[in-house]
Amino acid sequence: MTNAKIQLYDYFRSSAAYRVRIALNLKNINYNTIAVDLTKQSGENWSEKYLNINPQGFVPTLHDANSLLTQSLAIIEYLDEKYPGPPLLPTSINKRALARSMAQLICCDIHPLDNLRVLDYLRNELSCDKSAIDTWYCHWITQGCQAIETLLHKREKSFLFCYGDSPSVADICLIPQLYNAKRFNCDTSQFPLLNAIESNCNALLAFENALPENQIDSKH
Amino acid sequence: MTNAKIQLYDYFRSSAAYRVRIALNLKNINYNTIAVDLTKQSGENWSEKYLNINPQGFVPTLHDANSLLTQSLAIIEYLDEKYPGPPLLPTSINKRALARSMAQLICCDIHPLDNLRVLDYLRNELSCDKSAIDTWYCHWITQGCQAIETLLHKREKSFLFCYGDSPSVADICLIPQLYNAKRFNCDTSQFPLLNAIESNCNALLAFENALPENQIDSKH
Repeated sequence: MTNAKIQLYDYFRSSAAYRVRIALNLKNINYNTIAVDLTKQSGENWSEKYLNINPQGFVPTLHDANSLLTQSLAIIEYLDEKYPGPPLLPTSINKRALARSMAQLICCDIHPLDNLRVLDYLRNELSCDKSAIDTWYCHWITQGCQAIETLLHKREKSFLFCYGDSPSVADICLIPQLYNAKRFNCDTSQFPLLNAIESNCNALLAFENALPENQIDSKH
Repeated sequence: MTNAKIQLYDYFRSSAAYRVRIALNLKNINYNTIAVDLTKQSGENWSEKYLNINPQGFVPTLHDANSLLTQSLAIIEYLDEKYPGPPLLPTSINKRALARSMAQLICCDIHPLDNLRVLDYLRNELSCDKSAIDTWYCHWITQGCQAIETLLHKREKSFLFCYGDSPSVADICLIPQLYNAKRFNCDTSQFPLLNAIESNCNALLAFENALPENQIDSKH
């Protein structure tokens, strides 16, 4: 239990936090969850106390060895560099670049556009109605998933996961994004490679245990 | 001239491509520019030929050793792993995480929201006028820069650059973002640490040579 002191500031529905939960599970790292409710009227994440932990007011934040680390991809790279266990990146420099590229496509070009604060801005500042927001939400997911499906078709051969027969950072980012797509009724049925990889990932306990509905704060 | 075959699909005003230009310069890597005009009516980046190179239709794309690599941060990590020269990440695992975290704050939480395709969506699909778009643009930059300034204040000591006395991926991402802020008249005068780092970076030839106005396609 050498890792018992790692703490994850988490919210069950945050897909950025969901990525880090998968990474921690794949690495078999024992951690404590500190739930931060992003939806509360009071806004736990905007409290002075939490902003002192994460100046963006976002989750996840990882607390390990007196360091507070933010941003899911930076945390995943950190866990991979610091802790033993299955690597979260492929071995070859080229495949590492491809896996990171896919992770970033998701984390830069899909997820931030559909983030809670952006949907709030559309609703409150730009007076968008529910239909306009739903269209916006699925627009970026569909555009991103199309690019991912095309990139996967270009691989030299097919694998169980995005870039190998064990999950990497690309899969870690893909699964929470596909979960969100379903939650918001975006049609992803036209992406067979994505769907096959999703099934392979979700058959693993590391992914299952990271599911939003399996977190302690989902029960409140 | 061992690296003469590296090609960068580039557009002078793309801040994602600007990041990669800085990284290539810091590493002293010789490369050829292939300019892709993102603004042409014809949309060079949406041609079948270019979509075959980069399925997202974005720049940058790096062509090296028969590989086509996309996404600026993945390319920067690739260059750092493959090529000698000054490292683009700090040495300690903790500082690497902090530098990556700042890079990702910029690349995930600021830049994608102000991307050309998003501004086009606001204009064309949501009928936003210029004033609403300008407000949107600066909103995300100001929010992000505030968080960065706070994170920089939390460092154990001050450095010439974000996380050390040589530039890292954090600085590589920061400078193009601050350049964009100025271009769109977003006020960043209230961020003294950012402004000091910007001056230190822009005094280096690697940054100066990567400036949008110093690219061949800026003259057309």
